[in-house]
Amino acid sequence: MKLYVWTLAPNPRRVLIFLGEKSIPMTVEDVGDGARLKPEFLARSVHRRVPLLELDDGSLLGEAAAICRYLEALYPNPPLMFGNTPKQAALIDMWERKSEGEGVFAVAEVFRNKLSAFEGRALGGYRTELPQIPALVDRGKRRFQEFVETLEQQLAEQLFVAGDSFSMADITALCAIDFAKRSRMPLPENCVNVARWHAQVSSRPSVAGCAG
Amino acid sequence: MKLYVWTLAPNPRRVLIFLGEKSIPMTVEDVGDGARLKPEFLARSVHRRVPLLELDDGSLLGEAAAICRYLEALYPNPPLMFGNTPKQAALIDMWERKSEGEGVFAVAEVFRNKLSAFEGRALGGYRTELPQIPALVDRGKRRFQEFVETLEQQLAEQLFVAGDSFSMADITALCAIDFAKRSRMPLPENCVNVARWHAQVSSRPSVAGCAG
Repeated sequence: MKLYVWTLAPNPRRVLIFLGEKSIPMTVEDVGDGARLKPEFLARSVHRRVPLLELDDGSLLGEAAAICRYLEALYPNPPLMFGNTPKQAALIDMWERKSEGEGVFAVAEVFRNKLSAFEGRALGGYRTELPQIPALVDRGKRRFQEFVETLEQQLAEQLFVAGDSFSMADITALCAIDFAKRSRMPLPENCVNVARWHAQVSSRPSVAGCAG
Repeated sequence: MKLYVWTLAPNPRRVLIFLGEKSIPMTVEDVGDGARLKPEFLARSVHRRVPLLELDDGSLLGEAAAICRYLEALYPNPPLMFGNTPKQAALIDMWERKSEGEGVFAVAEVFRNKLSAFEGRALGGYRTELPQIPALVDRGKRRFQEFVETLEQQLAEQLFVAGDSFSMADITALCAIDFAKRSRMPLPENCVNVARWHAQVSSRPSVAGCAG
């Protein structure tokens, strides 16, 4: 197997931390090129995004969570996607999706609609040109703010994002928050539970060894 | 268990078709109220969206795909999420996510940024007001167009969206396309493979019995 990443981006980082948690050996290639992905990478697949996993039979698998679910089937322990019961698995899936859609994607909305390097590529992966829309910078900030408030409420009641154990939902939420910090959107000071959780998960070797 | 839906919306329809495919008995409540969800429903959970599944222990589970994955663990046959191999499961997950993010969400972008009924609620589920952004109507149309082109390429090579068998990826792609049609974005005439597939999946009793 081979994993294609762009080490500056949050979605490949989700998979890299997941690999670290499970000590899965992997050949990794960075296909970033300045502020964009290399054209020869983009030409390889209809899924013009990273992370992309190339299986040994040549199949190409995209979407961070789909890649991690595939790897979890091959390397079940520790369970980060499937939990120990159907309910745990469903809550992990739900919170992983919320952390992606309301967290990572909200920060990307700010980032890609603001920086001139992303002109015409305000969403990743599209063949058609998507112009930047300045009003989305504010919308992305509001969405991220609300995501953090939701997370604060959730982490006031439990240790980790999807329950009592560390899971893929924590990895994705952490990558959203670190991506936001890099995009000059630090955690609000009143989010004490998110701050407690963030310090704790950031000290895990898989996270500390994979800078965001 | 009890499923909360808004029968006019595409995401609850994904779960309703899934239930039909598996003949899963379910108590269903429509919490739509004109062009919005009922306030008493919105107050119930941080996940202010439909579909929402209430488990017998009172837990609330959101996100259409997470709900279906939970139900698949309880009712494994026919497999619509998990496939028969880790690779099949991963491809279903990948294409289900693409059909949601690039299909359903692209159409919603058009719909919610255009209709006056959605003023201040240009994305569903947020507590904060999110104003409509007229430029997103055009962006959503471009995104949907590219999704259909990707699907055309995929369905030129295989029978169903994620491979040789009908799966959750087909359900989500179908709901995106029917939602687009209702939003005056019909299938382009040159998408012959998408049209062939759409006619075929639309004739399934689970789909025909659940108008989109």
